[in-house]
Amino acid sequence: MSASAHPQAPNPAIVFDTLNAYTRTAALRGAIDLDLFTAIGEGNTSVGAIAKRIHASEKGTRILCDFLTIIGFLTKENEHYALTNDSAVFLNRHSPAYMGTITRFLGIPQLTRNFDDLAAVVRKGGTISEEGTLEVENPIWVEFAHSMAPMMRMPAELMAKIVASQVTGECKVLDIAAGHGLFGIAIAKQNPKAQIVGQDWGPVLAVAKENAEKAGVLDRYARIAGSAFDVDFGTNYNVVLITNFLHHFDVPTNESLLRKVHAAMAPGGIALTLEFIPNEDRVTPPIAASFSMMMLGSTPHGDAYTFSEYDKMFRNAGFSRNEMHELSPSPGRVIVSYK
Amino acid sequence: MSASAHPQAPNPAIVFDTLNAYTRTAALRGAIDLDLFTAIGEGNTSVGAIAKRIHASEKGTRILCDFLTIIGFLTKENEHYALTNDSAVFLNRHSPAYMGTITRFLGIPQLTRNFDDLAAVVRKGGTISEEGTLEVENPIWVEFAHSMAPMMRMPAELMAKIVASQVTGECKVLDIAAGHGLFGIAIAKQNPKAQIVGQDWGPVLAVAKENAEKAGVLDRYARIAGSAFDVDFGTNYNVVLITNFLHHFDVPTNESLLRKVHAAMAPGGIALTLEFIPNEDRVTPPIAASFSMMMLGSTPHGDAYTFSEYDKMFRNAGFSRNEMHELSPSPGRVIVSYK
Repeated sequence: MSASAHPQAPNPAIVFDTLNAYTRTAALRGAIDLDLFTAIGEGNTSVGAIAKRIHASEKGTRILCDFLTIIGFLTKENEHYALTNDSAVFLNRHSPAYMGTITRFLGIPQLTRNFDDLAAVVRKGGTISEEGTLEVENPIWVEFAHSMAPMMRMPAELMAKIVASQVTGECKVLDIAAGHGLFGIAIAKQNPKAQIVGQDWGPVLAVAKENAEKAGVLDRYARIAGSAFDVDFGTNYNVVLITNFLHHFDVPTNESLLRKVHAAMAPGGIALTLEFIPNEDRVTPPIAASFSMMMLGSTPHGDAYTFSEYDKMFRNAGFSRNEMHELSPSPGRVIVSYK
Repeated sequence: MSASAHPQAPNPAIVFDTLNAYTRTAALRGAIDLDLFTAIGEGNTSVGAIAKRIHASEKGTRILCDFLTIIGFLTKENEHYALTNDSAVFLNRHSPAYMGTITRFLGIPQLTRNFDDLAAVVRKGGTISEEGTLEVENPIWVEFAHSMAPMMRMPAELMAKIVASQVTGECKVLDIAAGHGLFGIAIAKQNPKAQIVGQDWGPVLAVAKENAEKAGVLDRYARIAGSAFDVDFGTNYNVVLITNFLHHFDVPTNESLLRKVHAAMAPGGIALTLEFIPNEDRVTPPIAASFSMMMLGSTPHGDAYTFSEYDKMFRNAGFSRNEMHELSPSPGRVIVSYK
């Protein structure tokens, strides 16, 4: 081989690689559809054995396994593939933390097609489909409740610990836009005297009900069906959960919702907001900071707000102070807001 | 902030990030469509100034610039953005090496939709659209010839140097599937006694003709219109160029073409094959190794072959020996094959 690398020379690789980044999404989605990680986890490590187990061509299997090795989901040694630590935990169907179901939400055309013409989105400053994912009773949120639950199990448990450190004994918990209900359910499991009220659209609440039943806490899981902006929350909540919700809306909409939350809280109550919250520079950490792009493409007015922006919204709504907690290794962060 | 990072703990970030990787493609394509890099290169560095210059919303512009910073195309300091070295060279329209046009090929639905259902592709072992990109006279290749030329300028010059080190004075050069014609044209510019014959489908050759004229070498640029598998190449070529072509086909098809090439060559002639050639492990270097996925999705039988596979194909076709040259920083590699 002749010639050597010039690390300082301009290199078009990043352009080419990024313009083809969509094939990474396609490959991971395809591997999950084929249950390839489960096949390898069961001990099929050669192309021939994996292909047989997933009922696919040897050529396609070889190219997919190599590609997954390149992008960090498998390792390869002497023609044998193995799962990485993360793939074994999150992508092998036999793992209790399996989260392959999230492709059923993150991969639906209703969401992904919002990025078909990003120039138009940037010109406009928001989604170019009618209401994006925010239309009333959009069935996308039932799918969300079903498929994203595995990704929320860890943050739900970490949040329940934060609540337990501040609120013990009898308490009334409101879970706004509860979805799968896991956040409220985690608190109910941790505190046998906690009474949970889940709010969401009716068809979504059916999923939360199912999960509350499975967790054995249905007798302490009340439900309010309807939009968070329209329903009567009731009063005297010691804890309010606002998870992955505020990023869909603009600041005035959020402040108006937060005033309603504030009014529904008992003296000394706390609100916990789970969000993708970038640092003040808005470009770190990468996953939280990237989330603004997802909101730009899929909502009319959503954003990934910084802590200082949330701090201002909560104060304007009447809260006295706010503090931020990390949930690592989950990319989410929690703001605890005091009435 | 509480809690610290657990670098060894399982982390779902890679799953989430990869399932959203398509938004990277969308963002870069959108930024090129909006000519955002040119705007910044011209000295517009604040969100307000950039938005005004690209006629877009401030919010969309801010989110896009932050996202491009996260994925490595911009830098950000004190609310001001700047181009990276690579962005300045390849994505600013005022740069002579501007290659933003490649989105017109890499981004067309005819290519990208091949990855909509990768599980089906892997099951089958090749494209699930009829012939993928290989149908006869597919107009995609005229677009390719126009839009991919800027990405091929550097490899074309590096290849012309390899030719110049082995062949001087009068020589006859056949450029198979010439496309934009840049590879033959680079040799014609380097060697005033070189006679080039470009072969490709008629509508594609029109692009090569145009480029030969611009380069002032049209009087030494003959053309053969038709499929490489059908046309008569003629004889007595000292140099044959086979650039980004063999990856579309299976081994028997390539060997048959290479026998035809061998027969068309003069004694002592050389063939230069420009390709994405992964190492024998097939998972390094990343760009060349990833290319097999592109071929799996978009062709019935194509692949990114290793050097040992090409070596065998050329030997089976009658060539005496083969050697590989790096073209860094271009991700391509060249095999020089001796008659």
